[in-house]
Amino acid sequence: MKRIYNFSSGPAALPEQVLRRAQEAIWDLDGSGIGILEHSHRGKEFGRVLARTERLIREVGGVGDDFAVMFVTAGATHHFAMVPENFLGPDTTADYVHTGVWSGKARDEAARYGRVHTAGTGEPAFTRVPTTLEWSATPAYCNETIYGTQFSAPPTGAPAPLVCDASSDIFSRPLALAGHGLIYAGAQKNLGPSGISLVIARKDFLERGRRDLPPLAQYRTYANEQSMHNTPNTFGVYVIGEVLQWIADQGGLVELERRNQAKAALLYAYLDQSTAFRPHAATDSRSMMNVTFRAATPALEAALLAEAEARGLSGLKGHRSVGGMRASIYNAFPEAGVKALVEVLDHVEHGRTSK
Amino acid sequence: MKRIYNFSSGPAALPEQVLRRAQEAIWDLDGSGIGILEHSHRGKEFGRVLARTERLIREVGGVGDDFAVMFVTAGATHHFAMVPENFLGPDTTADYVHTGVWSGKARDEAARYGRVHTAGTGEPAFTRVPTTLEWSATPAYCNETIYGTQFSAPPTGAPAPLVCDASSDIFSRPLALAGHGLIYAGAQKNLGPSGISLVIARKDFLERGRRDLPPLAQYRTYANEQSMHNTPNTFGVYVIGEVLQWIADQGGLVELERRNQAKAALLYAYLDQSTAFRPHAATDSRSMMNVTFRAATPALEAALLAEAEARGLSGLKGHRSVGGMRASIYNAFPEAGVKALVEVLDHVEHGRTSK
Repeated sequence: MKRIYNFSSGPAALPEQVLRRAQEAIWDLDGSGIGILEHSHRGKEFGRVLARTERLIREVGGVGDDFAVMFVTAGATHHFAMVPENFLGPDTTADYVHTGVWSGKARDEAARYGRVHTAGTGEPAFTRVPTTLEWSATPAYCNETIYGTQFSAPPTGAPAPLVCDASSDIFSRPLALAGHGLIYAGAQKNLGPSGISLVIARKDFLERGRRDLPPLAQYRTYANEQSMHNTPNTFGVYVIGEVLQWIADQGGLVELERRNQAKAALLYAYLDQSTAFRPHAATDSRSMMNVTFRAATPALEAALLAEAEARGLSGLKGHRSVGGMRASIYNAFPEAGVKALVEVLDHVEHGRTSK
Repeated sequence: MKRIYNFSSGPAALPEQVLRRAQEAIWDLDGSGIGILEHSHRGKEFGRVLARTERLIREVGGVGDDFAVMFVTAGATHHFAMVPENFLGPDTTADYVHTGVWSGKARDEAARYGRVHTAGTGEPAFTRVPTTLEWSATPAYCNETIYGTQFSAPPTGAPAPLVCDASSDIFSRPLALAGHGLIYAGAQKNLGPSGISLVIARKDFLERGRRDLPPLAQYRTYANEQSMHNTPNTFGVYVIGEVLQWIADQGGLVELERRNQAKAALLYAYLDQSTAFRPHAATDSRSMMNVTFRAATPALEAALLAEAEARGLSGLKGHRSVGGMRASIYNAFPEAGVKALVEVLDHVEHGRTSK
């Protein structure tokens, strides 16, 4: 069965080595006679899976003991509300760096629980991440999110711990944890399947959270009970472990960053010289993971999508709220697929389509 | 690779036909060239998966259009809090039928949001489900849960819609929806992998819920947006669909109930005549799915667990909060495995172990 190039923004392409391992594990996990979907979360076999995944996250990411590593059975959107519910009191302020659709949704959720302040905004076009930030006097935490654009480094000068939605960014390059209280990431981009998110948080930051919420609504429950207060997404934890092992096998995050930069550079280099297609993000704010661009005319856009489909390049249509095109080229997406896209773009631009 | 008998209470044994299908789909879903873990939740391929799973749930379960079918990225424990948060106001009462550990936890969560009333209890030993129930005057809803024991039919005479934790019970026999406002079930017992729950709720009951909660905290969001407000657990939805197809292939819920009754009868018949092992639940409250029992002495219990392990019978140790033994024999668990357990019990009772 031939696999095609999958530019989907998430769920997204996974390393083929990981898929092969998952196929085996579904029938029989490591010779136990029981598949990974069927193993009790309280049994020793899953205990080893959970411990291995956490160990690999700490090793690959350089995550120290002052941080908790947690798996939450929910996507990143769940954290839009869970973070302010835990950390934003009625008399405190949360500062948001407004970079696009997701940060807007996250900020809206925070407004249910306390005051919000917009420290900087990429409005109206969101072509760059804000660089001049005005923090409020006493923020509870400062949220940054990533959408189409990307911070080359976390914002500096924040008067409170940073909270980051790292869904698109995590483990695409070395992890910059300094200054952060908590980062969360939906797994379905660089980490594994959907239906699970990874949370990495400073233990002393977690201690500030509310204690009167249901156990599963408090981050500290996940930290204190190794994400096992109730049955976790066991398959998700397994696949994330396999993805982390694959990252380690490739040479770790420094090597992945090199590859990701090379892949993104190929595509941006084409777009920068094209007269038919133009990149959305400003040069200093370009994402390595999600390359967004538009065609000069609707006809060109339609021609591109048709030609891509015909050549086995899938998932290039932009997010329904934004339109245009988006090529998500996460860790597992191969450079050959980026080259194939550049070729298709060039052919469409010069009228050399296959039809 | 030889698979063994897995008596785990969840995650639990799945049909081998389903595992084989999932192995294929992880590499390439239905010839699309992209695996099920990697398909965009907004793409047409996953759209077909979601529609098929919902259709099969409605067909196999006989679920009509007055009910919504929802997939929530969370386990059943999440609903312990989500139900009262949605439906229990500060001046209303929720009635709970207290059948064991889980109903106690669910009742504790409800107490955060309003008044609770215990309509009946199986305390102290929880050997039977309460039959004489005293409902409060004006409950918002009445919660029943299932643990070791089982209601042969839902409680009657409730003055408000029933809410049911059907995690162990769902699709093990024809679905009794009458009188219910909402049922929820963690998937990892009779439905699929962990990290996803199925919710079936009357649409008019959902309309009573609070509207000032975050979108993902309101059941109506899942109903109104076909469980796609954010990225769902796509693999979980796929596997549940395959399990439902398998149920249909077997002849549906009437046939499964016949098989499940036969399996449970084999084991209870042995336990009823044994002098070494005794069943926990009273005859009129016995679960078809989770057969709990104890050995006459700790030495016998240890001998049984060792012999079972040696013969490839896994997962018989009872829940950590209860102790003893528990054989979970859900839909996918084969009758041959029950016979193997009876043989081991008999050998241990009569001192004919393999050592």
